[in-house]
Amino acid sequence: MSAFAAAAGADDGAGAQLGTPAASPSVQTIQIDLGDRSYPIVIGPGVLQSASSWADLPRAATAVVVTNVTVAHLYLSALKQALSLHYTRVLEVVLPDGEAHKDWGSVNTVFDQLLHQACDRRTVLFALGGGVIGDLTGFAAACYMRGVPFVQVPTTLLAQVDSSVGGKTAVNHPLGKNMIGAFYQPVRVLCDLDVLRTLPDREFSAGLAEVIKYGPIADAAFLDWIEEHMPALMAREPKVLAHAVRRSCEIKAWVVEQDEREAGLRAILNFGHTFGHAIEAGLGYGQWLHGEAVGCGMVLAADLSHRLGLMPASFVARLRGLIERAGLPVRAPDLGAQRYLQWMRVDKKAEGGEIRFVVIEALGRAGLRTAPDALVGEVLAAHSV
Amino acid sequence: MSAFAAAAGADDGAGAQLGTPAASPSVQTIQIDLGDRSYPIVIGPGVLQSASSWADLPRAATAVVVTNVTVAHLYLSALKQALSLHYTRVLEVVLPDGEAHKDWGSVNTVFDQLLHQACDRRTVLFALGGGVIGDLTGFAAACYMRGVPFVQVPTTLLAQVDSSVGGKTAVNHPLGKNMIGAFYQPVRVLCDLDVLRTLPDREFSAGLAEVIKYGPIADAAFLDWIEEHMPALMAREPKVLAHAVRRSCEIKAWVVEQDEREAGLRAILNFGHTFGHAIEAGLGYGQWLHGEAVGCGMVLAADLSHRLGLMPASFVARLRGLIERAGLPVRAPDLGAQRYLQWMRVDKKAEGGEIRFVVIEALGRAGLRTAPDALVGEVLAAHSV
Repeated sequence: MSAFAAAAGADDGAGAQLGTPAASPSVQTIQIDLGDRSYPIVIGPGVLQSASSWADLPRAATAVVVTNVTVAHLYLSALKQALSLHYTRVLEVVLPDGEAHKDWGSVNTVFDQLLHQACDRRTVLFALGGGVIGDLTGFAAACYMRGVPFVQVPTTLLAQVDSSVGGKTAVNHPLGKNMIGAFYQPVRVLCDLDVLRTLPDREFSAGLAEVIKYGPIADAAFLDWIEEHMPALMAREPKVLAHAVRRSCEIKAWVVEQDEREAGLRAILNFGHTFGHAIEAGLGYGQWLHGEAVGCGMVLAADLSHRLGLMPASFVARLRGLIERAGLPVRAPDLGAQRYLQWMRVDKKAEGGEIRFVVIEALGRAGLRTAPDALVGEVLAAHSV
Repeated sequence: MSAFAAAAGADDGAGAQLGTPAASPSVQTIQIDLGDRSYPIVIGPGVLQSASSWADLPRAATAVVVTNVTVAHLYLSALKQALSLHYTRVLEVVLPDGEAHKDWGSVNTVFDQLLHQACDRRTVLFALGGGVIGDLTGFAAACYMRGVPFVQVPTTLLAQVDSSVGGKTAVNHPLGKNMIGAFYQPVRVLCDLDVLRTLPDREFSAGLAEVIKYGPIADAAFLDWIEEHMPALMAREPKVLAHAVRRSCEIKAWVVEQDEREAGLRAILNFGHTFGHAIEAGLGYGQWLHGEAVGCGMVLAADLSHRLGLMPASFVARLRGLIERAGLPVRAPDLGAQRYLQWMRVDKKAEGGEIRFVVIEALGRAGLRTAPDALVGEVLAAHSV
């Protein structure tokens, strides 16, 4: 995707607009090019209400919105109203809220509803919610009658900048996060920036973790930009948010286009996630938000990069400072090094029991490395509560 | 696939060999061409023991054989021995036997084992068994860590000629057969003809239903050949069986190559299956074998083709006679037309509640048609017990 290079250090006036927070950014579209699985990511304020958001979607009699109780309260009726102009029948499946429900039972609830309502394989599913809803609805779409089309309508910052783009779908297994899933692309991603206004602070910060991630792994200039605009980001300035979402999606699209099924490069998107998954699993899913675990995990992964001789200590301090300013935890729960290592050995990137860490090799460039258990232990000791 | 045209009416000497049943056919390979998802189907006696069967498989530390108690007793140790030459660790998951166990619970048993044994995403799964084992192991492979390689080792005639080839994987849902699944291709199919010797008569006949199917839908000359060689087939003459398996796989490969994800042509492979699935679901899975339901379903679908004015009555009589000679039921259970229609409306080929039947338009050519409920009722009345 040429936009990757072209947009690096892009100036969309975000900085100049800090004094006019009411000014609305315009709707923008990023195309993700995956051959016959290509699709647009539509980003802007009010796209849920915009007619152009719905044009050219696959024709079908039935649309089914999958969401959770929290999001349903806020946006379900608006989405159903928009969909009713395009589909004869608009059904809904409302699940409980939270990572604890990202399991086979929830997916099966979706199947039960689809079959009880005689939904055929042209039925289009709409995932209205955060990463949990997006991942499990995508997996349900991948498996129902061996695959029906689905649209991502992410309502959290984290889902807009990361999980809704790229076709990774999954549910958790008691023995590991996202262990059961599929690579299955949506037919469209709709990022309505207005919905970010209602996001609780803790969820918003969790989303910033994935925004920050794109800097060290792929774009040093974007890291500078995030650092400079952190106060505006925390204040949820519309134009600044618009740039953060767009740039994050551009980088994600650029990575996924080169490696859809994570045979190589795509693994860099998991910077901070190996430690993060261990935190989530070790504490029990739902104790820390995914983005919180990733934020703290990036501090650990940055320090591992330093202790492996790849990056200076100043980089660790810089990233830790930025993560802290984003309202994220920077000290890891003390689960004991052995439990961390045990969880990390069942990470999907592990091979033959060897943990493969995403490390930063230079600002804007990541790679995969193994590390001695003792070194990992040092990292954990240095950053644990 | 050029083999389709070239091999139509092929003479591999099967007819001439009827007097020498001990003569072994040689190992043959059919390539199924699906771009980067291409793979060979290896057919012959003793291929489970042949070193060439295992060459060039994906490298991994661990192989996991998924099978059922019945097949494990017969072939598990032989397969594990062959695999132990290529993999450091050869594990097994032995499930209960039968269609009733083709469900999410069994797939989850596989996941539990894989995770407990710390199997990474290079692990290769081997499906040793009939259609149930092949379909559910394929689905487990599709979902485990978003996809691991798997090999089909079909041990029933039905699985060798149909379900192991083409990448349709699935499990049943209480509300419908094969409702939950994925298109996910194996990396190899190994059809060892020797294993067909131990197949119970009822299972062997069930497999013949799918062999017979390929005649009316794609190859009139093959239908003639099957009719001529039915006594030799029922006697399981090795060379005759070899031709039946090879020709069936060739036709299946030709169809799947043109329409991997069943957007059109591939639906013809479901000739007899719409009625058949209703029989299976209506009686409760496992009462009739899948092939028995398909055999009887083909009689019904042939008669529907006739009543729609596409085929003469003589075709219905001819196909019914052949299916009967194969030891298959030709009279449908009397579930009542309404229950048949109800089950058929949740068939995956149905769209907008309209049932789409695979019909024969001419010998060797099939198509999809709708039919008035009353006409379907006439068909059921004419062929019910």
